[in-house]
Amino acid sequence: MTIKISIDCMGGDHGPSVTIPAALSFLKHEPNAELILVGLEDVLRAELKKRHADAEPRLTVLHASEQVTMDDPLEVALRRKKDSSMRVAIEQVKSGHAAACVSAGNTGALMAVSRYVLKTMPGVDRPAICSILPNQKDGPTYVLDLGANVDCEPHHLHQFAIMGSVLCQASEGIERPTIGLLNVGTEDIKGNEVVKATSELLKADHALGKLNFHGNVEGNDIFKGTVDVVVCDGFVGNVTLKAVEGLARFMKTVLTTEFKRTPITMLGALIARGALRMIANRLNPARYNGAGLLGLRGLVFKSHGGAEAEAYEWAIRRAYDAAKNDVQEHLSAMIAELMPQEEPPTETRDTHDPVQQDRRHGQLPA
Amino acid sequence: MTIKISIDCMGGDHGPSVTIPAALSFLKHEPNAELILVGLEDVLRAELKKRHADAEPRLTVLHASEQVTMDDPLEVALRRKKDSSMRVAIEQVKSGHAAACVSAGNTGALMAVSRYVLKTMPGVDRPAICSILPNQKDGPTYVLDLGANVDCEPHHLHQFAIMGSVLCQASEGIERPTIGLLNVGTEDIKGNEVVKATSELLKADHALGKLNFHGNVEGNDIFKGTVDVVVCDGFVGNVTLKAVEGLARFMKTVLTTEFKRTPITMLGALIARGALRMIANRLNPARYNGAGLLGLRGLVFKSHGGAEAEAYEWAIRRAYDAAKNDVQEHLSAMIAELMPQEEPPTETRDTHDPVQQDRRHGQLPA
Repeated sequence: MTIKISIDCMGGDHGPSVTIPAALSFLKHEPNAELILVGLEDVLRAELKKRHADAEPRLTVLHASEQVTMDDPLEVALRRKKDSSMRVAIEQVKSGHAAACVSAGNTGALMAVSRYVLKTMPGVDRPAICSILPNQKDGPTYVLDLGANVDCEPHHLHQFAIMGSVLCQASEGIERPTIGLLNVGTEDIKGNEVVKATSELLKADHALGKLNFHGNVEGNDIFKGTVDVVVCDGFVGNVTLKAVEGLARFMKTVLTTEFKRTPITMLGALIARGALRMIANRLNPARYNGAGLLGLRGLVFKSHGGAEAEAYEWAIRRAYDAAKNDVQEHLSAMIAELMPQEEPPTETRDTHDPVQQDRRHGQLPA
Repeated sequence: MTIKISIDCMGGDHGPSVTIPAALSFLKHEPNAELILVGLEDVLRAELKKRHADAEPRLTVLHASEQVTMDDPLEVALRRKKDSSMRVAIEQVKSGHAAACVSAGNTGALMAVSRYVLKTMPGVDRPAICSILPNQKDGPTYVLDLGANVDCEPHHLHQFAIMGSVLCQASEGIERPTIGLLNVGTEDIKGNEVVKATSELLKADHALGKLNFHGNVEGNDIFKGTVDVVVCDGFVGNVTLKAVEGLARFMKTVLTTEFKRTPITMLGALIARGALRMIANRLNPARYNGAGLLGLRGLVFKSHGGAEAEAYEWAIRRAYDAAKNDVQEHLSAMIAELMPQEEPPTETRDTHDPVQQDRRHGQLPA
């Protein structure tokens, strides 16, 4: 069965010079995929022609006259640029023309526009951003939230646990993913009040056989692979993710500098290039590109803004896999089962102004 | 001038087999240092004799009949083991026999016993743990709090900034260390309410020319060396520190495994061993061992529990340098200048039961 993904081709630091080759390479590897390329039609067609792909039948070009830049305030992304490539790509999911959308545009705008266009899934208070990191067991560790929610209550973290578990289950084929709650120690008595209360909620789900809650985990457990899914608030998740990215970049610089220092060390590196290639491959950040915006009424994946074609293709693959594995359906079912449903008020939350909503969460400018 | 440091020789995973050689090596490098070795006298003397150092005139052995183990609950460390090597070592600072103390014992116990024995510095609400991490500018980045305070108010973070700045200034000889507030983005509008309010306090100090506040920083700025001091609450700091330690360990494993995989890659590593040694040296975690417990009426430094002798020696060096550079005096002066002093209540805070105090902070078992 064919699965169609929409791509915001103008988003990110590099735009079509990265998104188009990534899209073409992805199509080559995935015969059941179709792609909707969204952006300035002339630019996209020229890029396709340059790559002799203007007649590819599994590609559609969809014109959008505007672009959300990395510096655009959320108000601009939401209210002024109604024909942005980001928004048009997301609208393809809303209308059912695409099963998922990928963008490398700025995270705040992508989350805000996605919430505005798609709305939040029933039973979910706040969507979260979920990405994967490599671990010593050579598998991925799913981590969420990575920055959508800087202030969280226990029921938010509880929902993140459900969402992360469903994404991991569907994407990795793990029947009951283990869930860890990120904390300053593994003992029950450790942590702040929010974490302790969240632990109680997760234990209750575990006792019912609904979620596979392992207990508290510490920062190093992300890379040990102690659990499949690590849950934290968006402040802690964002800081931690950026810190480990910073360390990885630092270590890469040190490695490169030292091996290039003298002809002898360069010779050594040349002889050991097989090892260096394996190291680069196992730790390759491109392989871990593509974060899911979970808890919306449609699938949206975020690529790193600075991603090159290889990394961007990974983000497309993650969106495709999530669609193929029915992540939305599993998520709806699990949320309906585990979250207490309230009678919706006459005016439901999703009809509110999303900028106002985000302001209440303390994330957006006043 | 001679400076005397007391050492909890029984603390940590390895005890005297690490603390004694570290102490002896430190004495060799630092002719103005004297050390008080605290622990089971027989064991310490035997270890010294084995190393032909039982007649070293700059060493004193001080008997303590008990030990705080890694698993001891705080109540046990505080109330039952009144003759522990940890407590006796800290008491040397209290009595003025030592200018600073070093222990590799468990962090929670070390902080609780230090607070109980030494009391908190006037004007400081909560002591904090400050350590350093390497950065791309080949300097250290000071980071605090690393886990003593999991729930913080803006005035706590404000005090951490003052304490980190003073330690950095005294230890690195940087006249006005730059201070960054750890956040999810660099813009003023980013972050949770606590961070935003802290930013206002730090800006006010900056405007008065008191603190050199750079503004918000992100996780990756720790390793970029954007600022000299990074301030965060103990939850974020602890999780981040452990995550980067976890990644470093993971990368080291990958490097070692891949270079050892075939005779060819081993040959390459042999030829490039100069580079590998430089890499290990620049990223050597031992160099960054030794976290300061700041805000007490005396200097206490914490070594990693699993530290080997080289790393432990670094912790002793940091304690010695802090004492030599009059960190306590600078800290008192800066706190007195910047923190609004209240009239102390009849029963001052430090006479309270520290276990009860810690319970209120949500860190310790109920």
